[in-house]
Amino acid sequence: MTKDISTSTALFTDKYELTMLEAALRDSSAYRQATFEVFARKLPHGRRYGVVCGTGRFLSALEDFFFTEDQLGILSSFLHRETIDFLRNFSFIGDIDGYREGDVFFPNSPILTVRSTFAHACIIETLLLSIFNHDCAIASAAARMSTSARKRILIEMGSRRTHEQAAVAAARAAYIAGFSATSNLAAADYGIPTAGTAGHAFTLLYTYPDGSDEKSAFRAQIAALGVDTTLLVDTYDITQGVKNAIEVAGPQLGAVRIDSGDLGILAHQVRAQLDSLGAKNTKIVVSGDLDEYSIAALQAYPIDIYGVGTSLVTGSGVPTAGLVYKLVDIDGIPVAKRARSKRSIGGIKRSFRLHRPSGTLIDEVFDIIADDNPSDSIAAIPDFGDTQSYVTQVPLMRKGKVVCDSSVEHARKHLTQRLFSLPWEALSLAEGDPAFTAYHYSYYK
Amino acid sequence: MTKDISTSTALFTDKYELTMLEAALRDSSAYRQATFEVFARKLPHGRRYGVVCGTGRFLSALEDFFFTEDQLGILSSFLHRETIDFLRNFSFIGDIDGYREGDVFFPNSPILTVRSTFAHACIIETLLLSIFNHDCAIASAAARMSTSARKRILIEMGSRRTHEQAAVAAARAAYIAGFSATSNLAAADYGIPTAGTAGHAFTLLYTYPDGSDEKSAFRAQIAALGVDTTLLVDTYDITQGVKNAIEVAGPQLGAVRIDSGDLGILAHQVRAQLDSLGAKNTKIVVSGDLDEYSIAALQAYPIDIYGVGTSLVTGSGVPTAGLVYKLVDIDGIPVAKRARSKRSIGGIKRSFRLHRPSGTLIDEVFDIIADDNPSDSIAAIPDFGDTQSYVTQVPLMRKGKVVCDSSVEHARKHLTQRLFSLPWEALSLAEGDPAFTAYHYSYYK
Repeated sequence: MTKDISTSTALFTDKYELTMLEAALRDSSAYRQATFEVFARKLPHGRRYGVVCGTGRFLSALEDFFFTEDQLGILSSFLHRETIDFLRNFSFIGDIDGYREGDVFFPNSPILTVRSTFAHACIIETLLLSIFNHDCAIASAAARMSTSARKRILIEMGSRRTHEQAAVAAARAAYIAGFSATSNLAAADYGIPTAGTAGHAFTLLYTYPDGSDEKSAFRAQIAALGVDTTLLVDTYDITQGVKNAIEVAGPQLGAVRIDSGDLGILAHQVRAQLDSLGAKNTKIVVSGDLDEYSIAALQAYPIDIYGVGTSLVTGSGVPTAGLVYKLVDIDGIPVAKRARSKRSIGGIKRSFRLHRPSGTLIDEVFDIIADDNPSDSIAAIPDFGDTQSYVTQVPLMRKGKVVCDSSVEHARKHLTQRLFSLPWEALSLAEGDPAFTAYHYSYYK
Repeated sequence: MTKDISTSTALFTDKYELTMLEAALRDSSAYRQATFEVFARKLPHGRRYGVVCGTGRFLSALEDFFFTEDQLGILSSFLHRETIDFLRNFSFIGDIDGYREGDVFFPNSPILTVRSTFAHACIIETLLLSIFNHDCAIASAAARMSTSARKRILIEMGSRRTHEQAAVAAARAAYIAGFSATSNLAAADYGIPTAGTAGHAFTLLYTYPDGSDEKSAFRAQIAALGVDTTLLVDTYDITQGVKNAIEVAGPQLGAVRIDSGDLGILAHQVRAQLDSLGAKNTKIVVSGDLDEYSIAALQAYPIDIYGVGTSLVTGSGVPTAGLVYKLVDIDGIPVAKRARSKRSIGGIKRSFRLHRPSGTLIDEVFDIIADDNPSDSIAAIPDFGDTQSYVTQVPLMRKGKVVCDSSVEHARKHLTQRLFSLPWEALSLAEGDPAFTAYHYSYYK
């Protein structure tokens, strides 16, 4: 099968992955059975949980992790023939277990467990971490925004504030975390609803030698998009803008957008004005440097829809999730870095959540299992007494084939359920410690 | 000419760009002559200058801004036939002037001036801002790291901490800003040198039932990569790691890397140990959460190479540059948003730098010109007395064709020169006001 170079993800890779491969191939260590684990040593300062996101994108990218002849030509400048031959035939054939996309995680949660030869598991590291570190960061911030907005609608409109392709992944992460739509057209590929209003440039376009003409701009927009559209009313004077909008559209106008000024106060004034004009069902959209905190503060005002940009695509101050990918087992021997700092826990982990009969989480614990996939392990489940538990890891890939539902709808539903199971303090916006830290079950009393 | 959908950049676009287009096409306003300007209202808190980056990527992406039939099929769910027909034939045919890639910028600097019909200039907004907001953010942080590192070598190794494709752009931005190499293999497409060492997993791979064997790992790496390689010495015990490294490689070993602990103190100890073992030319590479501040603090220690990851790809706390794209002129009439906040200055700007005979910058000023390209304008140059000046904007695109050198080498050299022309306080790491703020020349005394 000839594959198109433009879909290959294989070069989104650090050079050292391939030089390590080369060194390990020479003495056949590359064929030892290796287990790598993805986890976070800690959460970002003040955050109480993280959101697993990127799984669907990663599994798809892994299927496209192949090397074309052109790429091999580039790599042959520093790799020997044997390594090039290995890469020519490469496709990932390992097993992956992990938390479902849309699950929550805590420090030490074994989010992903990759089992294969060292060769296969090593060279996918950079791609894996890129996707999860980006997508988890966005989804973790977006979930807090969703909690703040409660039943109000969130629209993702941050594409212009981040790398053009990261923007598509950010739109996907936001949707999984409860946003209703995105401005990004490419995100429609994931089945995500798209939405849009209008920009100031459109209103300014209707400027003539004798002055500006906001009504003409509104008239043109309504002629094209119907009265259900959203008119941007703050290009000149908001009060006049609202008046013009209703004069042109009538009281059936879908919505007005306010993009500057004190959004709460303005929303209050605009709501009163709209109501007085009979436009009682015209919605109010606000945008402009919103984040989870300003959304929470705006809940007291008559706003229907929040448009969130910069803070969404930059993870609200935390643009990367701090996930690492560590070798934890080689041929059945648990391994871990032992130097002074950045220690990690060796061995293959199977993770459990303990919960009340109501479903509320109590704890996350793990045991260390022998050389096996966490979700296939036949090792006896630890005794948690009367407390109910479930295994958090599920099979995601077997022998290189995806074996889970990797759709955004599935992840979105899963996150809703998982957030519902968190104790109330975990959902607080205030800075705090992680709601849980995964620990070895032998400490479980 | 049939183009490949996978290279099309046209859907990295907010939906409202196309609905604005549709509305403007219906009454032919879309064909009015529009000038849009890219600028930053302010710099990130404490930063004294920004770096223009992304120009080469943007000009290339703009050449790939075309709509395939598949894409048009998706868009026809919300656009009328006339708009679809317009997009089917679309390729950007406007003019673009701007600061050279690798130039510095300040608040209000007219970094880019796009002149075309409203239709053409409007729909490229999202792609343009995505690229410049990302790339300028990375380059602006990277330039400060380069200043901190002085003559020491910087290697970009942050791919795993950002979106997989953003990582490639980040590597490019870092190189333009003075980094010597990147770990990212895909960045080799830009002609950027790639580099790599080894990870802890490689050392841990050489673990057997009777224990770990760091020397075997080092031996395997040297067998594959030669003694000029960089050995990672902090997997177990650093002192033993250095001893093992030199025992295996001999005193000709290229370098050792330290990735954890107090990097300065450890570098000091390791340097002494290497010297005592006769490895006086073996370099020391350090990595691990470095940023411009920690690099500056480490300058007092015997370090040769810094590997920078997270803080580079996330813009050292500022992952997006805050650039906006505003309509400033329509058919020769200057326009600007006039609502309470976020005001901007209407009219097409031609920007000048004033400098001393030594080349040191004194000021950045602009005038407003009539309906023309800034770098083609025949309007008289303002009188700056005896002070020397140059126009900052150059032609980047004419009628949709690139007319500048958009190579990374060109941008990299240009930034070196521009940083040299800044007054010394502009290069301070300490928080401060912008070194300059561009202003209208009528205020020039």
